[in-house]
Amino acid sequence: MTYKLAARTPMILMLQVHDSRARDLETPNLLATDPIVPIESFRDCFGNSCCRVMAPAGKFVVSTDSILRDSGQPDPKDVTARQLAVEKLPSDVLTFLLPSRYCETDILSAYAWKCFGNEEPGWSRVQAVCDFVHKHVSFGYAYSRATRTAVDTLNEAVGVCRDYTHLAIALCRCLNIPARYCTGYISDVGQPPPHPEMDFSAWMEVYLGGQWWVFDPRNNDVRVGRVLMGRGRDAADVAFALSFGQHELAEFRVWIDPIEAGDHR
Amino acid sequence: MTYKLAARTPMILMLQVHDSRARDLETPNLLATDPIVPIESFRDCFGNSCCRVMAPAGKFVVSTDSILRDSGQPDPKDVTARQLAVEKLPSDVLTFLLPSRYCETDILSAYAWKCFGNEEPGWSRVQAVCDFVHKHVSFGYAYSRATRTAVDTLNEAVGVCRDYTHLAIALCRCLNIPARYCTGYISDVGQPPPHPEMDFSAWMEVYLGGQWWVFDPRNNDVRVGRVLMGRGRDAADVAFALSFGQHELAEFRVWIDPIEAGDHR
Amino acid sequence: MTYKLAARTPMILMLQVHDSRARDLETPNLLATDPIVPIESFRDCFGNSCCRVMAPAGKFVVSTDSILRDSGQPDPKDVTARQLAVEKLPSDVLTFLLPSRYCETDILSAYAWKCFGNEEPGWSRVQAVCDFVHKHVSFGYAYSRATRTAVDTLNEAVGVCRDYTHLAIALCRCLNIPARYCTGYISDVGQPPPHPEMDFSAWMEVYLGGQWWVFDPRNNDVRVGRVLMGRGRDAADVAFALSFGQHELAEFRVWIDPIEAGDHR
Amino acid sequence: MTYKLAARTPMILMLQVHDSRARDLETPNLLATDPIVPIESFRDCFGNSCCRVMAPAGKFVVSTDSILRDSGQPDPKDVTARQLAVEKLPSDVLTFLLPSRYCETDILSAYAWKCFGNEEPGWSRVQAVCDFVHKHVSFGYAYSRATRTAVDTLNEAVGVCRDYTHLAIALCRCLNIPARYCTGYISDVGQPPPHPEMDFSAWMEVYLGGQWWVFDPRNNDVRVGRVLMGRGRDAADVAFALSFGQHELAEFRVWIDPIEAGDHR
Repeated sequence: MTYKLAARTPMILMLQVHDSRARDLETPNLLATDPIVPIESFRDCFGNSCCRVMAPAGKFVVSTDSILRDSGQPDPKDVTARQLAVEKLPSDVLTFLLPSRYCETDILSAYAWKCFGNEEPGWSRVQAVCDFVHKHVSFGYAYSRATRTAVDTLNEAVGVCRDYTHLAIALCRCLNIPARYCTGYISDVGQPPPHPEMDFSAWMEVYLGGQWWVFDPRNNDVRVGRVLMGRGRDAADVAFALSFGQHELAEFRVWIDPIEAGDHR
Repeated sequence: MTYKLAARTPMILMLQVHDSRARDLETPNLLATDPIVPIESFRDCFGNSCCRVMAPAGKFVVSTDSILRDSGQPDPKDVTARQLAVEKLPSDVLTFLLPSRYCETDILSAYAWKCFGNEEPGWSRVQAVCDFVHKHVSFGYAYSRATRTAVDTLNEAVGVCRDYTHLAIALCRCLNIPARYCTGYISDVGQPPPHPEMDFSAWMEVYLGGQWWVFDPRNNDVRVGRVLMGRGRDAADVAFALSFGQHELAEFRVWIDPIEAGDHR
Repeated sequence: MTYKLAARTPMILMLQVHDSRARDLETPNLLATDPIVPIESFRDCFGNSCCRVMAPAGKFVVSTDSILRDSGQPDPKDVTARQLAVEKLPSDVLTFLLPSRYCETDILSAYAWKCFGNEEPGWSRVQAVCDFVHKHVSFGYAYSRATRTAVDTLNEAVGVCRDYTHLAIALCRCLNIPARYCTGYISDVGQPPPHPEMDFSAWMEVYLGGQWWVFDPRNNDVRVGRVLMGRGRDAADVAFALSFGQHELAEFRVWIDPIEAGDHR
Repeated sequence: MTYKLAARTPMILMLQVHDSRARDLETPNLLATDPIVPIESFRDCFGNSCCRVMAPAGKFVVSTDSILRDSGQPDPKDVTARQLAVEKLPSDVLTFLLPSRYCETDILSAYAWKCFGNEEPGWSRVQAVCDFVHKHVSFGYAYSRATRTAVDTLNEAVGVCRDYTHLAIALCRCLNIPARYCTGYISDVGQPPPHPEMDFSAWMEVYLGGQWWVFDPRNNDVRVGRVLMGRGRDAADVAFALSFGQHELAEFRVWIDPIEAGDHR
């Protein structure tokens, strides 16, 4: 990411591979800046690794690169995973039933029950939500808007992966299914060409049968090579870069290249 | 309608039977006030009969009563009525394709085409809109809110007849079907008991095959004894009473009693 | 205006000088299209001259050009113009007190009275509204959004001339001052350079002392060479071009060149 | 609180005095239910004490009562408390700069800087925000709405203590001042009669000069006898009762009675 900054600007960056994948790192996953500035690491209340920097005025480049071992397996799937009654949910999961900035469950509750109340609780109800969102929303970068919420996405029926995810999360929470927002990389491996330019991606995890499962309403399919960076209630919690001042993102590039085992040595 | 007014208050009233039913009036349809105040009549830009009064402070009663001949026939229906291409629509109908205060067609366009674009154009597309709205929205006076728009109704899935109508109108306009908002009375004749307390009602008219047709997404059925008071783009145009000052509506009562032909003499 | 159209597209155009300036036209103010297509003229319910065309697929150019006599006088001003009580307003003016698509008076009423209730009614109250809007909103084409309303503009504090105008209109109507939306040209004559690229402009008219007066919250100043095209409740009523189908506006150019009296012969 | 429940209903309750006041409790601060049901305690991610119960169908009463020592001192105040630059803020405070469900900082940023950017940073800027909110918003229980956000409150200019607080929090965060939402009790001690019926209250804490300070935009004054129950990003985090099912709150009563030291033995 190349920034053009009018003045010294404090930034918070959430660009590193999530701790849950730390054991898969073949090379250290460090953040580099140009010019070099001190980097302070901390963990947010969702356990994500964040970095704080004071970026100087002018051109400022932030980058990171790593080699990561991947199972090559698609997202796990278990259509028999059951929905836990609210009273059976662990306490630390309850926060993912609440409304959040981009997921207005307090508004969408009646909508959710009308449309999905007749679906079988559990995996198939979540899948029904994803099928609806995937079909309802038209993808397009031109449709990107920083303030778009789940309600907006439902109404406007357009958006990017972030919007698909917010709408699906909001609907799941309305249905008493804990749902959280994830950002990270998804590789193209196994996808038919043409491959669009790489970008960070967003998906969700829902809590069924006592564990979290990946659902991806944007692609609405299992994928290989999904690398988590951060998790939170919604995009407000996991911005990959937060700048406290005027800034221009002059360049932005994301890459994932598959390497056969052993190749990189 | 009985008002309690803190001060002298200018009011605009749209309570009279619409001119299109003037020939059916057996008794004059005059407005009465208590205390008696001068009443000025005018016609708004949609052709509705309106009255202006300066209501005095204190208790103020507005009433009107009439005997009206009715065909006893249900709302006309023609499932073969075709949708005219935009270029074939008369010019004076085009205004009913535009967005208005409570019908945000500019927001709902993608939604409408996603959900109803595959329906057969014409009568059955309008009926599909009404079926959706009727099923999607839960009725309840507790859900009444003066600022609720079509978008709000879609999201919250609750409302009163006004909200059903706004949502259906917005969706029709998105689909290039002119639609306008109607207020008036609907009798209970032929409806199974229990009969709820009478109120004014709202429905819509859509332009198909060269003429306007009644559709009633709240009841989603043809009805007997529908008496029009006013028509406009949405509820903003046809408030039955508009008060320019603090006011409390202390009592409000609407009645329709069927009289057999000849009975009233 | 040069369009690229994927298919035959019905269009409604409101590009001609308003009838109130007809006597000032030195050359006829006709619409031209390339390719040439039949043009049907009609008048909308606000008295604006509109044209309907069926544009063919492909490149489609719409243009108009005229020579207009102008007084060279700035917008009339009368700071003694008084605000009429609602009961004194002519009936045909009342519609400009109602909420409309982009002017949610039903939401902003309390806001308006809090902020402007202490201002002297009449001209200075309207001027206070314009001063506030002019100062509160930051101008920028990047901030343009077709669905932005007066409420959005108040919150986001950014916008284009259309947004300034909607916010000022909504606030005036809340204060029982009739206000209507105007589109047209404004010349640069007498303005200090640099002159930005020409565009259509929006301003409002408010009803004080028995007549309509121009106020321009975007520029917040009187101007010379204002040429009206259309008037309505808000931008929904006076779109300069309305296309019923997919379209791309490939080029758009507006010009006003001052000509000394006699020069053009 | 007396509930009427149609069915067995899981509930989450946040009704206990906050841990930060634990040392002031003269009597244990336990939750009681009628009928008696098992109560499970847990701590949410903001450190609040919460209880989970499975309420039976029918009438269900939840209550708690305690004697608490209070300093009798008003809220601490230090008008010299300085605003820390973002880069100087502790990491765990940064989450209170982010947008949340009812505090749309992403929308209100320009508004906040326009209105308060010229105020002296630090205590007086926060006070300016509180003065504005206190004056701008009209209080009334009739104006209560579960979905009202800071943006709604700004526009509608009405609300209850929750709404005042959300608007003030949103504006502070826009100005890079961390702000969090607090719920609890406020006593009437020292307030002039008449005393309104007791209710839970909401206020905010802002981070200045390295610590959190109480600001109360609803009352806009220091108060004696403020007892904290919960803290979070906004009301979504600290609902005093969250019911996962249909419920009716039949009765609700809050009390605070001052006891002189020693009286209660």
